[in-house]
Amino acid sequence: MKKALPIALSNRHIHLSEKDLYVLFGEGYELTKMKDLSQPGQFACDEKVDIVGPKGTLKGVRVLGPVRKNTQIEVSVSDAFTLGVKPVIRNSGDIVGTPGAKIVGPKGEIEIEQGIIVAARHIHMHTTDAEYYGVRDKDIVSIKIDGPRGLVFNNVLVRVSEKFHLEMHVDIEEGNACGVKNCDLVELIK
Amino acid sequence: MKKALPIALSNRHIHLSEKDLYVLFGEGYELTKMKDLSQPGQFACDEKVDIVGPKGTLKGVRVLGPVRKNTQIEVSVSDAFTLGVKPVIRNSGDIVGTPGAKIVGPKGEIEIEQGIIVAARHIHMHTTDAEYYGVRDKDIVSIKIDGPRGLVFNNVLVRVSEKFHLEMHVDIEEGNACGVKNCDLVELIK
Repeated sequence: MKKALPIALSNRHIHLSEKDLYVLFGEGYELTKMKDLSQPGQFACDEKVDIVGPKGTLKGVRVLGPVRKNTQIEVSVSDAFTLGVKPVIRNSGDIVGTPGAKIVGPKGEIEIEQGIIVAARHIHMHTTDAEYYGVRDKDIVSIKIDGPRGLVFNNVLVRVSEKFHLEMHVDIEEGNACGVKNCDLVELIK
Repeated sequence: MKKALPIALSNRHIHLSEKDLYVLFGEGYELTKMKDLSQPGQFACDEKVDIVGPKGTLKGVRVLGPVRKNTQIEVSVSDAFTLGVKPVIRNSGDIVGTPGAKIVGPKGEIEIEQGIIVAARHIHMHTTDAEYYGVRDKDIVSIKIDGPRGLVFNNVLVRVSEKFHLEMHVDIEEGNACGVKNCDLVELIK
């Protein structure tokens, strides 16, 4: 039996630490929720910032909330080339040794030494989903997509938590490379 | 034994008919070769045009020569969204029923009724290469790429001709989705 799950395409975005939020938007600033994201507690904000790299700028990069421990910028490989930094594929949170940039907000700007990643594709799933698919947290699986741009993504990280909602995350370039759109169903193969 | 071949990433570009070239650049105009491409006789030109869709514009899209029978614009899925047209995956030359756009050159502009495609990934190979790989013209094969963004492209069209030079062609989004750069070796699997 085929085991399907929904896919979602992530556009470039930034997570801010509270300290960096205050510098960019003003002391004591609170993020404005625009809409909830599929993962419980996560939301897209009205706020946007500019990311300035050694070669170019990404204007109007959306902030995702809530604030996190460390500021992290998630871009595509094309975005990394636009900025003029090396595209480094990493799991979220794993930012040691990644490129930095200048971040410009309405009230101030900061230089970060590291924090720009190209997010490694991954699947969020709830504990009960993991049981259904027969996988465990940190497993590496493959995902098959049909159609004219059909392909099999290898090296897909499974992340299991009671806080997660079932969804595979790829970036825009990965999504377009296989011709999917948000909520399309893809097949998990081990 | 693994059967490897080189890959190349195609950026957005346009092929012009002689008639359209003359409207855009002036009667009797001849394209200026900037550099030869890997396929014999094909070359990138100094000339660029703007492509104007119902929603947005792609500025400075490079012309490839020589002139062809029909004008054809090859874009990525993201480019199609920027223009505001439907991304239609097609083999080169198969443009019936595809979206059109306005093309703006330095001396004039034209409206084309059709001609915008998202090129289907494919492999050019010489007759002797086809023998080595054990494939024939129009075969559909798969291509495996290793690394952190490793994947298997299915539905890859093989095109065999005595005029072709061995190379797989993907667009920028497909190339970035698997983390390859020009001339990287990929593996043909049947």
